Amino acid sequence: MISTGSEGLGLSQLAPLLAEVGKAFERQLASDLPPVNTLCRHVERYRGKMLRPTMVFLCGQAFGPVGERHVIVAATCEMIHMATLVHDDVLDEAEVRRKGHTVNHLRGNEVAVMLGDYLISNAFHLCSRAGDPALNLRLGEVTNTLCEGELVQLSHREDLSLDERTYFEIVRRKTAVLIGACCELGAQLSGAPADAVAALRRFGEGIGVAFQIQDDLLDLEGRQDVVGKSLGRDLEKGKLTLPVIIHLAQASGEVRERTIEAIRARDGAALLAELTSSGSLAAARSRAVELVAAARTELRHVPAGVSRDALDAAAMAIVHRDF
Amino acid sequence: MISTGSEGLGLSQLAPLLAEVGKAFERQLASDLPPVNTLCRHVERYRGKMLRPTMVFLCGQAFGPVGERHVIVAATCEMIHMATLVHDDVLDEAEVRRKGHTVNHLRGNEVAVMLGDYLISNAFHLCSRAGDPALNLRLGEVTNTLCEGELVQLSHREDLSLDERTYFEIVRRKTAVLIGACCELGAQLSGAPADAVAALRRFGEGIGVAFQIQDDLLDLEGRQDVVGKSLGRDLEKGKLTLPVIIHLAQASGEVRERTIEAIRARDGAALLAELTSSGSLAAARSRAVELVAAARTELRHVPAGVSRDALDAAAMAIVHRDF
Repeated sequence: MISTGSEGLGLSQLAPLLAEVGKAFERQLASDLPPVNTLCRHVERYRGKMLRPTMVFLCGQAFGPVGERHVIVAATCEMIHMATLVHDDVLDEAEVRRKGHTVNHLRGNEVAVMLGDYLISNAFHLCSRAGDPALNLRLGEVTNTLCEGELVQLSHREDLSLDERTYFEIVRRKTAVLIGACCELGAQLSGAPADAVAALRRFGEGIGVAFQIQDDLLDLEGRQDVVGKSLGRDLEKGKLTLPVIIHLAQASGEVRERTIEAIRARDGAALLAELTSSGSLAAARSRAVELVAAARTELRHVPAGVSRDALDAAAMAIVHRDF
Repeated sequence: MISTGSEGLGLSQLAPLLAEVGKAFERQLASDLPPVNTLCRHVERYRGKMLRPTMVFLCGQAFGPVGERHVIVAATCEMIHMATLVHDDVLDEAEVRRKGHTVNHLRGNEVAVMLGDYLISNAFHLCSRAGDPALNLRLGEVTNTLCEGELVQLSHREDLSLDERTYFEIVRRKTAVLIGACCELGAQLSGAPADAVAALRRFGEGIGVAFQIQDDLLDLEGRQDVVGKSLGRDLEKGKLTLPVIIHLAQASGEVRERTIEAIRARDGAALLAELTSSGSLAAARSRAVELVAAARTELRHVPAGVSRDALDAAAMAIVHRDF
């Protein structure tokens, strides 16, 4: 979405910067141990959309030149993201990711757990290379929050009474704060004023929540050959997502009973039919669209130009993607 | 072993310092989310021997006063260690740890994976509070190496041709480097000269390898009610440890066949009988004793005094522990 879009946007600087992120990745993950290198080569293909590095660079470029520190932060955030993908696939028992097999499917959960740890460790090590303790502190805070979101989500598995407030708190923590930090740090490292830094953090968190809602929708109604990863995992693992929460909050009588039965039976087709007929899928999609609209208003704190236009386009693309 | 021993050694300063580590732990892991707090309270009981913090403080005290940074490093290293325990228990499918149930047994692998991540993340966040990028860089290097050791070990599961050289390389990485870093950083933060810092790193790595060999022996011949954790996991998970490697390197004919059959059948009693009669248990124990003896000679770089005596006593205790 973003990586191809960026060319269309005429951001000639973005492609070489993303290539720098790729090089930083390879340098960081190079090991003298062949079994480690084989695994790292496998997960390198998880670097798909590069949404997080793109946000670091666009938010930086909007305020000034971007440099080595931006590349370090971008690569660190993408590596943190990859670590969460590897561990999420263990949690979700997913078999497919980026149209290839997941590490847990190919090599077992144990290797996937340890490989995720290796990526987290390397992310922090790479971040430390910037020589700026404030960066370590900020990204440590972000990953603490991210894990908290995952832990709270796990504690609500099979919880049919999960409410919207808790759902949004989980999603903010597990998905949005990392994207928010990418925007915030990208701008900060280019010397953006404090109000713009704060606005871009809100922008990133807003599109981050919208991104997760879109992920929830794709898990329910996407086509695996297009999305490129295992779908239906939310239902399978007892995770209530926004369309289901909206639906259950208003459903009563037979509709409610049929829905709960579909959830208990892990019947994706039946659940989808209920969510469609009640308008809950559309309602969830509207929430994502509203979040993106609100996020875009934060861009008034950003100087007009090609970078701001690209941020605006990226935000809109979030809710229109089908992969 | 260490925590009770330290009182006997008359190191009156050690107990309050270890209490500071406990407080740093609680402060760091305090969350506004009840499900997260419940889990953290459960793993707090994993803080048993406090070997790593003890090494930070003793190596520091041998050269000068110890302060806030020592406490941060000590708590960070213990938190890294706890994270590895939580994930190791997932890898080993262990049910008992410190005489209580493991997180994976009580709450499932998914919670244990995510809780381990939360501990790793908090360890790095805590470390960043020292405001010293060199510390982050060093500990990031240590955890990279630690994960590499685990990944190489996983790649050798069921490998009957695993040799001693590879075994020692795995153990150095997965266990010894962290203990070595505790000794090194403790001394460095108290202003020890470079040759003493390097000697204490070697000391720590040496006792670390000996510690792991002792763990291997306990897994084979220990009593679960004394050791306090699930035993026989190495055999169960196809991990060849030093006594088995020594044994297979010299066994031939029927002895070799019987041993391989015991390994394949996961027959702990039969394997133990083979290892005992061939003298391989005793040989492995001798290696640990030799490593401790070599490590103790490194202490000549440390000024004589109560801290050096305590380091010496701690090293000897490593190979005499039965838990």
